[in-house]
Amino acid sequence: MRFLHTADWHIGKKLHGFDLLEDQKAAFDQILQIAKTEKVDAIVIAGDLYDRSVPAVEAIELFNQMVIEMNLQEKLPILAISGNHDSSTRLETGGPWFVQSDFYLHTRLEQAFQPIEMGDTQFFLLPYFEPISARLYFENEEIRTIEQAMKEVVKEMTMHFDPEKAHVLVSHFFVAGSEKTDSETKLMVGGLDTVPLATLDAFDYVALGHLHGKNALQSETARYSGSPLKFSLSELNQTKGVWLVDIDVQKLALEFKEIQPVRDIIQIKGSFKELISPEFYETIQKDDYLHVQLTDRAVIPNMMNQLRQVYPRIIGVERLYGREDQTAKKTTKAGLKKLAPNQLVEQFFSEVTGEEPTGQQQKWIKEQLAEIHQSERGK
Amino acid sequence: MRFLHTADWHIGKKLHGFDLLEDQKAAFDQILQIAKTEKVDAIVIAGDLYDRSVPAVEAIELFNQMVIEMNLQEKLPILAISGNHDSSTRLETGGPWFVQSDFYLHTRLEQAFQPIEMGDTQFFLLPYFEPISARLYFENEEIRTIEQAMKEVVKEMTMHFDPEKAHVLVSHFFVAGSEKTDSETKLMVGGLDTVPLATLDAFDYVALGHLHGKNALQSETARYSGSPLKFSLSELNQTKGVWLVDIDVQKLALEFKEIQPVRDIIQIKGSFKELISPEFYETIQKDDYLHVQLTDRAVIPNMMNQLRQVYPRIIGVERLYGREDQTAKKTTKAGLKKLAPNQLVEQFFSEVTGEEPTGQQQKWIKEQLAEIHQSERGK
Repeated sequence: MRFLHTADWHIGKKLHGFDLLEDQKAAFDQILQIAKTEKVDAIVIAGDLYDRSVPAVEAIELFNQMVIEMNLQEKLPILAISGNHDSSTRLETGGPWFVQSDFYLHTRLEQAFQPIEMGDTQFFLLPYFEPISARLYFENEEIRTIEQAMKEVVKEMTMHFDPEKAHVLVSHFFVAGSEKTDSETKLMVGGLDTVPLATLDAFDYVALGHLHGKNALQSETARYSGSPLKFSLSELNQTKGVWLVDIDVQKLALEFKEIQPVRDIIQIKGSFKELISPEFYETIQKDDYLHVQLTDRAVIPNMMNQLRQVYPRIIGVERLYGREDQTAKKTTKAGLKKLAPNQLVEQFFSEVTGEEPTGQQQKWIKEQLAEIHQSERGK
Repeated sequence: MRFLHTADWHIGKKLHGFDLLEDQKAAFDQILQIAKTEKVDAIVIAGDLYDRSVPAVEAIELFNQMVIEMNLQEKLPILAISGNHDSSTRLETGGPWFVQSDFYLHTRLEQAFQPIEMGDTQFFLLPYFEPISARLYFENEEIRTIEQAMKEVVKEMTMHFDPEKAHVLVSHFFVAGSEKTDSETKLMVGGLDTVPLATLDAFDYVALGHLHGKNALQSETARYSGSPLKFSLSELNQTKGVWLVDIDVQKLALEFKEIQPVRDIIQIKGSFKELISPEFYETIQKDDYLHVQLTDRAVIPNMMNQLRQVYPRIIGVERLYGREDQTAKKTTKAGLKKLAPNQLVEQFFSEVTGEEPTGQQQKWIKEQLAEIHQSERGK
């Protein structure tokens, strides 16, 4: 059995306001290409297919197009589960028909215990769930944490084990000891949602979703595939891709296949003058999603607009050494009272935007204040 | 060919705040029963499956359950289109898989021209569409109205006609001369969305959706099925159900099959005293959705609460002969100034609610005013 393990597609996600649909489509095309080239028997998607429980229409269109292409056109079996970002009810629409073409999409806990058998392997598709679901399913009031729930879940799964076959678990949660980054939201504090790695020992391979880095967990037999794209600055140095998994009762072999982004997330560092000079920007991909580290301390008028003229996709600007004279400029209440109205507005503008008003802006401020002054006198 | 024609399910609709899911489920069960008893070859649903473009999770659950039961469990072919209340993209999820079990769900104009052939009949499933879609599809800038669009649509459909077969159009729009009621929202003014009946002459039968009364259109060969339930007071006197259609190249036979609601919409009329007396309310279904016509003119303290204790599902109260002394009570500005604070609040309460404050409410008003008075003095 050879399958491809991916997860955390987060279709419809935006990166600091930038639409990622085109990037997600390009990553998907590479996943499909890998699946075809490597002649996999199935594609495993370990949750968070969508980024939101109520995805936008454009996200639904893209996702539908992807699975149609993968399953109906390329005839690739799909083994998928819902993640914490998905709405299980919205996602499961169509599910009972999907199975006719070997597209298995599990969204409810009770579906997890009927293994999907393909060749010499049994797949247990366990969607993201809350402890309450396990409490109800097992009729066991003691279950309060995912760890407790998982012990029961695994116990019930093993009762369906065929000893002649390899056993794969597909699931979406936080395994103890994993490293997390910024873009996996809502991870609970205190370990209530954490599963100890030993709980998963019964399986020959655990295809995990939830964390976005492929190296989040150090284990031979349980892996996060990571997301196919970088979704936050904290994933800057991660290599993205999918696991190619060869498995049978005797052996497990893993190979990581990289995905090349259309636009990477990169970080650039320098003075404002350096960064907007062609000598610098002609050496990098200006169209990438950029995090800018500025070495200047001086106030730079109209900075963001000037940077955006060179770099259309800035996702953040950081002043590495802070800003000049920030303390010196802090004015006392008495000092404020001495300022002219236009100076007050200009100072407020600078504090909020981090930029001095331009000549034109200063002119507007004066004109508007004069107009207000006129109309006040007219009353 | 024998099929059942229904439309305008509006799953998830609320009636003056009352959830209709249970009523909709019960109506569906009867539709399914009719389909089985009458051994129909297919079920036609002419649009507005959902009430909203983004249905609530509960509505999706119910709808999914319905089509699973109908198509996968009872093996009944379904021929459905999206209506103006549906989001075509959200609805079409799963569509390419549905066809494997003869569930055809068309949501885009371009799907309408490939007839679904069943036995001796060709079905053309034309989803609700806007003129812009026809303008793009036919690459014809002249198309500005649905009437213009429909001429082109029908012309293209007839090119696919098999003369050996009967031709059925399934569509969702307003046919000129139809009578509309209150609950079909967003009907445009000025006839821009209106299709003349003659445009539909090419078809042996037109299964329409959009209007909620089965008699909205006077035609032998084009019918609205109406909604399976009453969705507004204006539908008070409508009989709800589905059409049972027998069709072949030679003949068309129609029979209307009624659906009995769990709770009807009814109107009751009488004085307040009559309506809350057991002699009256024991003669009617108190659990129905009730519109109340009150013959009293006097102000009735706490009227709504008292009525609701008897009738849990009131959707409206109407004073048939207006309210007593409304003009006489209108106070002049000078008159208002003479009122004590508590009298002012009581009068405001009466004007807004149409009820006198109860003794307890009068007490609260006085207490609160005293408290305010105290705290004002304390300043």
